Amino acid sequence: MDIKDLKFDNGLITAIAQDYKTGEVLMVAFMDREALDKTISTKRAFYWSRSRRKLWKKGETSGHEQIVHDILIDCDADAVLLKVEQIGGACHTGYRSCFYRTIEGEVIGEKLFEPDDVYKK
Amino acid sequence: MDIKDLKFDNGLITAIAQDYKTGEVLMVAFMDREALDKTISTKRAFYWSRSRRKLWKKGETSGHEQIVHDILIDCDADAVLLKVEQIGGACHTGYRSCFYRTIEGEVIGEKLFEPDDVYKK
Repeated sequence: MDIKDLKFDNGLITAIAQDYKTGEVLMVAFMDREALDKTISTKRAFYWSRSRRKLWKKGETSGHEQIVHDILIDCDADAVLLKVEQIGGACHTGYRSCFYRTIEGEVIGEKLFEPDDVYKK
Repeated sequence: MDIKDLKFDNGLITAIAQDYKTGEVLMVAFMDREALDKTISTKRAFYWSRSRRKLWKKGETSGHEQIVHDILIDCDADAVLLKVEQIGGACHTGYRSCFYRTIEGEVIGEKLFEPDDVYKK
């Protein structure tokens, strides 16, 4: 598998970040080719922000970066699974994982920090 | 959180299926509102196929359905994480997970069946 064989849909692939030790799913986002290239070369997760239309390094503001241990690709070659060591919390809301609540609204995630303490210094 | 508060992008949300016991990420796909509604009401995973442009029940051909134990939503409310009990293999290629190889091309997944035995009877 070469990166050029990945199938970028409208320039993007789905990227899931999972704790490399516990298996906890931390977040899902998108990558363009540059984000994937930078992730591979630096072993730190980079994503493409669809709302801001720009490349971003996870943790560039908060310091909560993701150290990438392995990258898996799926059968269709249009999604990647990053096995990461999460520094701090993955979620900008302060939770360890962005998936911190059930669809019924129950909060089940672990809160690690107050967003104001991290993002508004 | 009500389903109507989820943010469907072009009618779709990202849906990750994860083994509810082992934490293994099995696949990632998309859901429209109907797929999510049916998943909630039947406790079996339904997805929207972008290529075939139709609703599909996971395992409807193979029998390899996903029994849904929990549904988590992410901070942005535009992705769901299904905690599932996977019957058979999640991947149409015969592997337990669609993420059965590294980006370097090494196959690391567990193969459970030969696709011809399941899909071409």
